[in-house]
Amino acid sequence: MPEYPTIEGIHAAAARLKGLAVETPLLESDLLNERLGGRVLIKAEMLQRTGSFKFRGAYNSISTLEPSIQKTGVVAYSSGNHAQGVAAAAKLLGIPAVIVMPKDAPGIKLSSTRALGAEVILYDRQRENRESLGEKVASDRGLTLIRPYDDPFIIEGQGTAGFEIVRQAHAMDADLDSLLAPCGGGGLIAGVSMALTEKSPATEIYSVEPEDFDDMARSLQAGERLENSGDGESFCDALLSPMPGEMTFAVNSRLLKGGLAVSDGAVGAAMRLLFESLKIVAEPGGAVGLAALIEGAFALDGKTVCVVCSGGNVDPEIFKKVLEG
Amino acid sequence: MPEYPTIEGIHAAAARLKGLAVETPLLESDLLNERLGGRVLIKAEMLQRTGSFKFRGAYNSISTLEPSIQKTGVVAYSSGNHAQGVAAAAKLLGIPAVIVMPKDAPGIKLSSTRALGAEVILYDRQRENRESLGEKVASDRGLTLIRPYDDPFIIEGQGTAGFEIVRQAHAMDADLDSLLAPCGGGGLIAGVSMALTEKSPATEIYSVEPEDFDDMARSLQAGERLENSGDGESFCDALLSPMPGEMTFAVNSRLLKGGLAVSDGAVGAAMRLLFESLKIVAEPGGAVGLAALIEGAFALDGKTVCVVCSGGNVDPEIFKKVLEG
Repeated sequence: MPEYPTIEGIHAAAARLKGLAVETPLLESDLLNERLGGRVLIKAEMLQRTGSFKFRGAYNSISTLEPSIQKTGVVAYSSGNHAQGVAAAAKLLGIPAVIVMPKDAPGIKLSSTRALGAEVILYDRQRENRESLGEKVASDRGLTLIRPYDDPFIIEGQGTAGFEIVRQAHAMDADLDSLLAPCGGGGLIAGVSMALTEKSPATEIYSVEPEDFDDMARSLQAGERLENSGDGESFCDALLSPMPGEMTFAVNSRLLKGGLAVSDGAVGAAMRLLFESLKIVAEPGGAVGLAALIEGAFALDGKTVCVVCSGGNVDPEIFKKVLEG
Repeated sequence: MPEYPTIEGIHAAAARLKGLAVETPLLESDLLNERLGGRVLIKAEMLQRTGSFKFRGAYNSISTLEPSIQKTGVVAYSSGNHAQGVAAAAKLLGIPAVIVMPKDAPGIKLSSTRALGAEVILYDRQRENRESLGEKVASDRGLTLIRPYDDPFIIEGQGTAGFEIVRQAHAMDADLDSLLAPCGGGGLIAGVSMALTEKSPATEIYSVEPEDFDDMARSLQAGERLENSGDGESFCDALLSPMPGEMTFAVNSRLLKGGLAVSDGAVGAAMRLLFESLKIVAEPGGAVGLAALIEGAFALDGKTVCVVCSGGNVDPEIFKKVLEG
């Protein structure tokens, strides 16, 4: 495995994913633009295979394994989106997948991962460490661990969304002043920022995280990787990782303009607005970018901004509550 | 105005709409395919500008008016989707629009039409006739009436979705055995069936309507235009037109294989399934095609079928109830 992701690696990933990953649309709404006072282009990654961007990296990483290693199978730990990405990729490649997931993961993420044929092992987020559990399963069963973000192939796979954004924005006559993307471990934004730095270097890129889980924002400011306190709570289940990845931080600290944080209330308002104006289902973690515009964490001020909506795997009960406001 | 729609007219419409209408994606879900037992490709027209396919025809029709006629403005009658299509097209062209809408139209359709700058005139569906009201407003104010389906430019505009479906299915290595599309007045399915008959002649095309509003299905069978009884009820507000259009029936009676009808219960189940598996918001009328697969009105049996989902303009209250099941 290479030591760090490269732009050539993103090109190679795009070739591997052709015809397998969805080229998700870049959506725009007249009403949304008017309401927010600028031009907002939504990269709709909830329309990606498995309902989130994670399939891009998972397939890219697993498909580059040596055939002999690949066929014994893979293991991953994930709150649910990487889980489905790995399960779907393994199914396509005809190999077994074991996924370590928290017991309190959204039901839709658990059931979809199982429906994709993966074996699911549950753990307790408060008492057990998912990394060591994943590594134990890997060594006990001889499986290859597919990490959620600190893997060059994963970052390069996620970066393919960035190439699409640049091409689609160009076709829409849009010059991107900025891009906002959700940030958990930081793999999506690392890959996307590499692609944009190559193809659209004037675009300023910001990570967006839930309040109290803004480890990337604080780490960017401090110039070193900082952990979250662990006391916070948020319904953005996809974005609760404890600290930036080593590899992702190396990229993000170089390429990002800064990091933003948003409240769960603004996230709910963003999910409603996406329902009303664009007819798409965002999960909480997928809607933080738009929440930053609603809450004013980022001042739109007539600019043209791409907002990456990373996924839509949300339980109906949560979505119903969000629609109630 | 030409007397009937032509395939050349659909090509001309596609050129006019380029860069203005969204090329909506053709979506597929591994889980959906497995659950239904076939290959289902969803044409996601809720992702179209204004949240339904109607923008295609409305812009195509209005943009072909003589400039002197165009600038005095247009009027339309509509339960809400044609309303928004006409309002958005008029706004783009910088001309005034008046829309005659039923008082009980979904709130989201009323507010979005107004937000697009149109003047809305409300009428009572039980007591007033929308056609004569629309014609009266047109003659009183010197506006041009943009009919919802019996207009060659409208049918040709809607037909552009058919060209996209054929191109997108080809890129996905899919040979379409059948296509199912919602049917109100029949403009969408008329245009789409013209496009498919040209580009994918082996594909069998079916209209789908709510039970008790299956005027197209019964008319196809009888070989003449029949009315609905008027006693039925359905929450598919976009599909409640009283009988097939004259022009649309002339096309549909020639090109459709048949017509299907579905219950509101199956429509709700289809809306839930689209939420879960594809993360898209369908309005009731937009989900009838998938409902036909769920309910068995159409036997999927391993076939490859395109299901057109025509719109997503649904009030949060209705969507919440649908998620509750």
